[in-house]
Amino acid sequence: MSLYEALTTESAVSLVKKLGLFAESETLSCQEIGDGNLNYVFHIKGTEKSVIVKQALPYAKVVGESWPLTLERADIENRALRLQGQFAPDYTPKIYYSDKNLAITMMEDLSYLEIARTGLINGEDYPLIAQHTGEFIARTLYGTSDFALGPQEKKKLQNTFCNPELCDITEGLVFTDPFFDADTNDFEEGLRPDVEKLWQDSNLKLHAAQLKRLFLTSGDALLHGDLHTGSIFASGTETKVIDPEFAFYGPFGFDIAHFTANLFMNAFSREESRRAPLYAHVVTVWDVFTAEFTRLWNENNTEAFAQTDGYLEWLLADIFEQATGFMGLEMIRRTIGLAHVKDLDSIEDEATRLEAKRQSLSMGAHFVKERARYTSADQLVAAFKEGL
Amino acid sequence: MSLYEALTTESAVSLVKKLGLFAESETLSCQEIGDGNLNYVFHIKGTEKSVIVKQALPYAKVVGESWPLTLERADIENRALRLQGQFAPDYTPKIYYSDKNLAITMMEDLSYLEIARTGLINGEDYPLIAQHTGEFIARTLYGTSDFALGPQEKKKLQNTFCNPELCDITEGLVFTDPFFDADTNDFEEGLRPDVEKLWQDSNLKLHAAQLKRLFLTSGDALLHGDLHTGSIFASGTETKVIDPEFAFYGPFGFDIAHFTANLFMNAFSREESRRAPLYAHVVTVWDVFTAEFTRLWNENNTEAFAQTDGYLEWLLADIFEQATGFMGLEMIRRTIGLAHVKDLDSIEDEATRLEAKRQSLSMGAHFVKERARYTSADQLVAAFKEGL
Repeated sequence: MSLYEALTTESAVSLVKKLGLFAESETLSCQEIGDGNLNYVFHIKGTEKSVIVKQALPYAKVVGESWPLTLERADIENRALRLQGQFAPDYTPKIYYSDKNLAITMMEDLSYLEIARTGLINGEDYPLIAQHTGEFIARTLYGTSDFALGPQEKKKLQNTFCNPELCDITEGLVFTDPFFDADTNDFEEGLRPDVEKLWQDSNLKLHAAQLKRLFLTSGDALLHGDLHTGSIFASGTETKVIDPEFAFYGPFGFDIAHFTANLFMNAFSREESRRAPLYAHVVTVWDVFTAEFTRLWNENNTEAFAQTDGYLEWLLADIFEQATGFMGLEMIRRTIGLAHVKDLDSIEDEATRLEAKRQSLSMGAHFVKERARYTSADQLVAAFKEGL
Repeated sequence: MSLYEALTTESAVSLVKKLGLFAESETLSCQEIGDGNLNYVFHIKGTEKSVIVKQALPYAKVVGESWPLTLERADIENRALRLQGQFAPDYTPKIYYSDKNLAITMMEDLSYLEIARTGLINGEDYPLIAQHTGEFIARTLYGTSDFALGPQEKKKLQNTFCNPELCDITEGLVFTDPFFDADTNDFEEGLRPDVEKLWQDSNLKLHAAQLKRLFLTSGDALLHGDLHTGSIFASGTETKVIDPEFAFYGPFGFDIAHFTANLFMNAFSREESRRAPLYAHVVTVWDVFTAEFTRLWNENNTEAFAQTDGYLEWLLADIFEQATGFMGLEMIRRTIGLAHVKDLDSIEDEATRLEAKRQSLSMGAHFVKERARYTSADQLVAAFKEGL
């Protein structure tokens, strides 16, 4: 017997009152603001405060199709949020309550901030977003790694974040489908020659397969798992990372790769003269990640080889190389795969839009295949500026 | 409350009779034949048949010290044996019964065979051991990998083989302690200059750290985890792999590395004129592993990129490189770490023994540091023959 039932605006209000977050007598407004594809998101507002109640739905709806999806992901998201809140409290929403049976997490209302993707499309620059996101990634990844926890604790924690169904979505949509003529792909007819060329690029496929193997087998740390600019609430002064339902133990380079890929894809939607802040973000997120990871490495490290000459440098270089590849894959799949980014899709002029998408595809493929040649974020930006 | 109690020869006999493996009235002999460090091993014999009852002890005893060790490992061993029996029935003991509470596995009596290490030391060559072991490794690894199971099934299976305490032993004794002045190390005073040189070799330490990271984070397949020649029962015609209590999801190259390292260490104990069968085994186990892994890859593969040009070749080359490094580490730790091999320790003449151990250390370090230079087992054998 399942204790799960989908909330309504009425039952969501009753719940937050029962939990004492609001007085019984208070008049509350409640609006469901989710996209309804995977989750309900209730925004509940009283006279002085407000909360978010997020509930997982037992299915996923994408392009009209619906398939069953584990409710377990709500529990994974809730536990990931709590861990991330421990390592990076400034960049994580506060959690008030969670219920595994109902698959809900009740958390801080962040609607005073803006989803970063939306803001970036509207021309915001968020001067601190790269600093904050770099710290978030370094702290949450390092904090859940073998280095911080020791291998025994890490293995036990890793075992509580087995997330096969959500990983399956990433394995399909990011790492596989865009490289084959798969039903899930979605691209404009004008891109077909480019896409068919990509499907025939067996060197690209080999590199995609190598990166996929890393994703399937490398358990470095607890990843956010879906850290694009749509998973970040931001303002000029604050940054909050939300929605870690894809969290699992994966390779160190994955999260930073998705963040930088989405910055680059936003850059495609801007005039060259307005791209500088995005380029700066790519460099900053890497600088901050590297500095913070290094600080934590030197401060709190259970690894006997921690001070071995060259080990940290080798590890950081390895993370950079894999991240460059993951970044390229994200650029490809956001252009021709199932889930697009509004940054590219909302370019109104068709020729400009197609050219941006072609650039996204060819730059993506380049970063995947040539990832071993890149050793610094400055080089990534230089290559991006130069175009292909 | 724990239902565990250590068996005695009497209660072991009662148990097998209660289970109907022998008639109530039959007179059975029962002998405890384990080394008593980690497990009891009862050899129970009737007039027509015999069985082995292996029971995990709640502690490990090594060099007089005793530390608590999870009984969970008996369950892991039992489940690993059953899986290995599914993929490689000819090379795995038959399991008759197991009881998680008592931490016992009741299995086929293999005492008509000989432990391969003992036989090799006594001059046996076991002409089929490399063929069989190569098939065992390829089938058990491939069968539990993402390629065979698909990522979702694999992740679920991986989650049932979390083995932090036993992995901790390997992480310490194989990957860490030999490279530092650790209490667990154990070497002859005559080797001290060589050992101190090794401790100061920071390039070697960097490579050991890199290989340790692979062991800590790469979940390719369900490994045996301790596949040395002491874990193999053999005869001229049969091979059975026992004792997978260290089983966990680790890197593809680990098991074959331990097997080949132990072949090479046996070679050190022989005159050059009698080493040829061991060299042939090193080449054969790699040939058979590669051919069998390739056959399975082409026959049963869920990976969309399986037929991508160069993917299998890249994967096999990657496995070979990591295995060459793991092999070197095993040679080092078996020479100066806590757990030695009798092959080296039983060389009677002191000068000969020290020279063999020096060779084992320097060849081991060479394979660790130069692993990227080796691409075939023939090259490994050639380097070994040449010496350092």
